[in-house]
Formats: sequence, C-alpha cells, structure tokens
Amino acid sequence: MGLEWEQTIIDAADPARLGEWWRTALGWVVVDASDDEFEIRASADRLPGLLFGRADGSKTVKNRLHLDLRPDDRDAEVERLIALGARPVDIGQGEQTWVVLADPEGNEFCVLSSRRDDA
Amino acid sequence: MGLEWEQTIIDAADPARLGEWWRTALGWVVVDASDDEFEIRASADRLPGLLFGRADGSKTVKNRLHLDLRPDDRDAEVERLIALGARPVDIGQGEQTWVVLADPEGNEFCVLSSRRDDA
Repeated sequence: MGLEWEQTIIDAADPARLGEWWRTALGWVVVDASDDEFEIRASADRLPGLLFGRADGSKTVKNRLHLDLRPDDRDAEVERLIALGARPVDIGQGEQTWVVLADPEGNEFCVLSSRRDDA
Repeated sequence: MGLEWEQTIIDAADPARLGEWWRTALGWVVVDASDDEFEIRASADRLPGLLFGRADGSKTVKNRLHLDLRPDDRDAEVERLIALGARPVDIGQGEQTWVVLADPEGNEFCVLSSRRDDA
C-alpha cells in the first residue's frame, strides 16, 4: 500500500493569518509559506500536517470534516483558545464531554475531554 | 502546550461503510466501531486517525477541508482508488501534478505527485 496521509487542507480566505492562528493554537512550526499556502506541522518531519490554501468563497454550511484535539486540561485549553480568538458554537451537540469551538474563519473543531479524565 | 491532534472527523451518512472504504484505501486498521462511529488509524496507537461519525444531511458544497495523500506511484494509486469506487472530480483545478478524487459519499481528496518524482 503506497499512500501516506500527508496533510489536511483547510480552505482559507487568508491562509497565512489562519495558519498562523492554528500554529499558535497547537504550538506547531511553519514548514512552508507563500502568498497562497501556509503549511504547519507538529515538527518539521512529522506527518500529517495542516496546509491552509487560498480559496474563493466563504463558509456557508457546517464543515463535513473537522479536527478533534485532545487536551491535557480541557477547560484551560478552551479558555486559552477563546482568548486567542476562537468562539464557542452550537451545532446541536447538547451536553457532551467535548467542547465545540470555531476558528477565526468559522471552521468548527472540538476540544475533547482531558486526557487524564479519559485514562 | 497541551493539545494533540487526535483525529479528523468525517461526517457520514453510513459511517461503517465509508470508514471501511477508507480503511481499505489506506491499508489502515479499525480501532473502534459502533453503529454511529467508525474509527481507523494507520496503526492502533498512531495519531491522528480518521473517525467517521453519523450525521444528518448530505453534502451540498465542496468541502472546505480535505485530505491530501502522498503516493509511491500516483497513477497506480489513482487507478486502484477508482476501482474501489472513487471518482474523478473537477473542482476547477485545471492541469496539476495532483489528481482530485471523491470518495463514495462525495468527499473530495487529492492524490499528490508520486513520492519519487518529488524527491
């Protein structure tokens, strides 16, 4: 089988700005940056990464793909992400162990239960 | 920084069917399966994985997130994926080094240039 998951692409109105937001959110590094693309990884050689690409059109519906992030401390991470510019969103999830946020361009993502609670 | 990318969630009308399709496409393993969720990883402990979750509503627009896959041999992998049930899609990409396909529920993904051509 010769297929490796190299990256998840995220369409962006402003790739550098949104990519830099995610780099800060995750504590990752930039591996490639141009006017139209901004690529980040956990470390330079670690796959998959996230690549923000310039795309026409704005977000109109809930994304059918989203990222789930596992925190050491859920509430502390949610507070930090909201301070960075994320916002809580209601996609009808009700009361759950995870928290749904949206990034500055509206892409939904989830902060899961704290790792220690799951162990 | 206490956040790890655990998985990309893919909304699905039929999580088990779509998840099994991707498991075959990638040569991965199933790590969790219920009626509403089907989770696969490259190996049991390797993150991030892909989690297919049951969602109402069908796909109406091009996804703003998609997966990029790096093949050893692009044309052979594209042929294999189409034989599995993927279909070529035109999202206005024009002539590129990558090939755009859609999975059986219409989610776009890219097969990039062959690793050996990129080296």
